[in-house]
Amino acid sequence: MMATFEENLEKYAELAVKVGVNVQPGQPLYIGASIESAEFVRLVVKKAYEAGASHVIVDWGDDEVTRLRYELAPEASFSEFPDWIPAMRQELIDMNAAFMNIVSQSPDLLKNADPNKIATFQKTAGQALEGYRQAVQSDKVSWTVIAAPSAAWAAKVFPDKPEADQVPALWDAIFKAVRADTEDPVAAWKKHDETLHEKVEHLNERKYAKLHYTAPGTDLTIGLPEGHLWAGAGSINAKGNEFMANMPTEEVFTVPHKDRIDGYVSSTKPLSYSGNIIDNFKITFESGRISAVEAEQGEDVLKHLIEADEGAKSLGEVALVPHSSPISTSGILFFNTLFDENASNHLAIGSAYAFCVEGGKEMDRAELEAHGLNQSITHVDFMIGSDQMDIDGILDDGTREPIFRGGEWAF
Amino acid sequence: MMATFEENLEKYAELAVKVGVNVQPGQPLYIGASIESAEFVRLVVKKAYEAGASHVIVDWGDDEVTRLRYELAPEASFSEFPDWIPAMRQELIDMNAAFMNIVSQSPDLLKNADPNKIATFQKTAGQALEGYRQAVQSDKVSWTVIAAPSAAWAAKVFPDKPEADQVPALWDAIFKAVRADTEDPVAAWKKHDETLHEKVEHLNERKYAKLHYTAPGTDLTIGLPEGHLWAGAGSINAKGNEFMANMPTEEVFTVPHKDRIDGYVSSTKPLSYSGNIIDNFKITFESGRISAVEAEQGEDVLKHLIEADEGAKSLGEVALVPHSSPISTSGILFFNTLFDENASNHLAIGSAYAFCVEGGKEMDRAELEAHGLNQSITHVDFMIGSDQMDIDGILDDGTREPIFRGGEWAF
Repeated sequence: MMATFEENLEKYAELAVKVGVNVQPGQPLYIGASIESAEFVRLVVKKAYEAGASHVIVDWGDDEVTRLRYELAPEASFSEFPDWIPAMRQELIDMNAAFMNIVSQSPDLLKNADPNKIATFQKTAGQALEGYRQAVQSDKVSWTVIAAPSAAWAAKVFPDKPEADQVPALWDAIFKAVRADTEDPVAAWKKHDETLHEKVEHLNERKYAKLHYTAPGTDLTIGLPEGHLWAGAGSINAKGNEFMANMPTEEVFTVPHKDRIDGYVSSTKPLSYSGNIIDNFKITFESGRISAVEAEQGEDVLKHLIEADEGAKSLGEVALVPHSSPISTSGILFFNTLFDENASNHLAIGSAYAFCVEGGKEMDRAELEAHGLNQSITHVDFMIGSDQMDIDGILDDGTREPIFRGGEWAF
Repeated sequence: MMATFEENLEKYAELAVKVGVNVQPGQPLYIGASIESAEFVRLVVKKAYEAGASHVIVDWGDDEVTRLRYELAPEASFSEFPDWIPAMRQELIDMNAAFMNIVSQSPDLLKNADPNKIATFQKTAGQALEGYRQAVQSDKVSWTVIAAPSAAWAAKVFPDKPEADQVPALWDAIFKAVRADTEDPVAAWKKHDETLHEKVEHLNERKYAKLHYTAPGTDLTIGLPEGHLWAGAGSINAKGNEFMANMPTEEVFTVPHKDRIDGYVSSTKPLSYSGNIIDNFKITFESGRISAVEAEQGEDVLKHLIEADEGAKSLGEVALVPHSSPISTSGILFFNTLFDENASNHLAIGSAYAFCVEGGKEMDRAELEAHGLNQSITHVDFMIGSDQMDIDGILDDGTREPIFRGGEWAF
C-alpha cells in the first residue's frame, strides 16, 4: 500500500528531528527555512517540541525578498552585515542549541543579479559568520541540512512535468532520497549509517598518503594530511550526542592536504551556487592552489568564488560516492548540492572540517593550517564523479591500491 | 470604475512606504510580518527599495509556530528572552532604521493557551524590549503599524461569509479604512492629517486640567498633566522626518496624569489582546490606580495584564474618536485594536507617550514620571466610546466645556 503524502511528510519531519539534529530534552532548536516550506516546518516544530525542545526558533527567509534585494538595493549595502545575525548564532551555540537548515532555494534565483553583489555578500557573510562556521565544522553543535521543495526549484528539476505535478514530484524524490518512504525510516538510517562506517573504517585503516583520480578531463593527485580521518553519515557533537549533518548522505569524506594538490579536474554535474548555475568547468591545481579555471556557464561566478579569500583557492574536502548510489541511479539532476553531491564523487573548494584530523576539534586555526587543513570563509562542494572514474590510493611507500574502478568501490 | 485588487494592494504598499514610515534614501527598513502576508510584504519591499531604502529586513513570524510554542513548550522557557532580539532592534535604531509592523494575528490564536505562559511572555518580552519601546514611544525613529488579513482573522470578522470570500472582504475593509481605494491615497492622507490637526490645535489651546466621561457604565474623571500636548495623525522623528504611526488613524490623543484618575469605565467593544478576547469589562480607578476589574470574557487575561508591572495598573493614553468615524460607520467589528480603537473613544493601560508633554522627548523615565506620565512595559488600548458618551473638559478654575456630546465632537 502506498503511503500518503501526509504520512511521508510526517515521517520526514520525525527523521529530521530524531536523526538529523537528534533534539535532546531541554535543548533549543534553530530552524532556517523558506516561508514556502511552512507546512513542513510546522510539522518539524511540533515534532521538536514533542521530543522535548525548550524553544524552537524559526528564522524564515523568502527567495523573492532576496531577489528584490539583489535587483534593487545599492551595491555598497552588500558589504555591510548586521551584527545581530552572528550574535544570534553565538547565543544559540552558547545555549547548546541544535541547528537545522531546510534548503529550498531556486537554482536560478540570482541568475540575473550582479555577480559583484553576490561575491561581496558571500565574502561579507562568510567573514561575519566565521565563529558559527567553526562551531559547525568542528561538530561542536548538532546540525543538519535537509531540503524541502519550492515551486521554482521543482520547476527546474522537472521542467517537462505539468506545473501542478512538479512540487509533488520533488517531494517524492526527496522522500525517496532520505528514506522517508520506508516503513521505519529511523531504523533504515541506522543500517545505512553502519554501511558507510564500514567504508570509513577500511579507509582509516589504510592511511593513504595520496589519492590519484583519473577520468575523462581529470588527472588529479591529492595528498592527505598525516593523521587524517575519514568520516561518513553520523557525527557526534561536543556533548557526545549523535546527529546527521546532511540528509541525504551517501558519502565518506576526509580532508586534503591544502599544499599537496596537483593536476586538473572536470565537473560532471552542474553546480548550483548562490542562486546561479556553474556548469562544465575545469579546475587546475599547482601545489595545492588553483592556477586556472574555465567554465562553459557561470565562469564569472566561479572566478568570484575562488577570489573570496586565500583559502578559496584550495580544497577542504574529498568525498567518495559510488556511481550506483541510490540518488545517482534515480537519474534525477537536483540542481542542489545536498542531493547532487550524494550522487557523485566530489571535492569542496574552501574550508576543511577540523574533525577530519586526529585532535583537530581542539586545534585552533593556526594549528589546523600547520596540519595541512585549509581555512576559508567558504565551503562549496562540486561534483566530479562518473562511471568512468578510477581512484587509486597511494601508500607512503608508493604502493598503489584501487579504491574506485569505473565509478564503483573497488575494495 | 472599480479598482482591481492588485491596484489597491499596490496603492496600499505605496502608502505604507511613503506615508507610513516615509522611507528616506539610504535608510534601512525593518518589517515585522506574518508569512501569510507574503504577497503584500514583497510589494512593500519593492516599493521601499524603489524609494531608496538601503536594506529591507523582513522579520517573518507564523501564527501556527507561535501557537505550537504555547501548546507544547515548557512553562519555564517563557521567562527567557533571547538577547539577540533587543540587540537587533537597538542596532537598527542606531542605524536610523524605520520600523513597520504588519499585523494579522488571529484574535483567537491563544484562546486555549495557559494564561500564565501568556502573562510571563508579555512581561519578559516587555522588559527585554524596553529600549526599543522607549525609542518608538518618544518618536526617536519612524515607525508604523498597519494590517494585512490572515485567514483566521478574516474568518473571525466575517464568520457568515463563505470561506473563499472572507479574506477578500477583509482586504476591502482594510483598503477602505486606510483610504487605499481612493484615487490619490497620499493626497487623501494629507487632507486627513490636516483635519485631525485642527482638533489637536483646539485642544492644545484649551489646556484642560481634567476630562470627565459619562455614559452607561462609565463615570470617570481623568486629570491631564501640566504641559500635556494633544497629538494626532502625522508624527515627526528625531531627524525631522514625518511619519504616520498607525494606519488607519482617526484619533487625537494625549497622556493622562497617572495619579489623577478616579471613577469607573466600561468597555464598549471586545479587546483582542495577545491572542485572546477580553469582552464586556469594567475598570474602577482610585487616585490613578486600578482598584477593581471585572469581565464577562477573558477576566483572567485582563487580571494578568494589569499585574505585568506597577505601571500596568494605570493609564498611558486618552484618545478621542467620534462615533461617526468612517471605521465606526462601516459597522465592522475588526477584533483588532488598530481598527477598533479608531472607531471609538479609547484609553490605554500602561505606558505614556513622551512626546505628549512639553519637553518630554528629552526627559528620562524619572522626569516623565515626575510630570505624571505613566511608565510600564505594556501599552494596551481599550475601547469605551459610544453614541451615548458625553465628555466635558474642565479648566483649572473648574469651568466645564463640552468636548463630546452623544459620541460626537461638541466644538
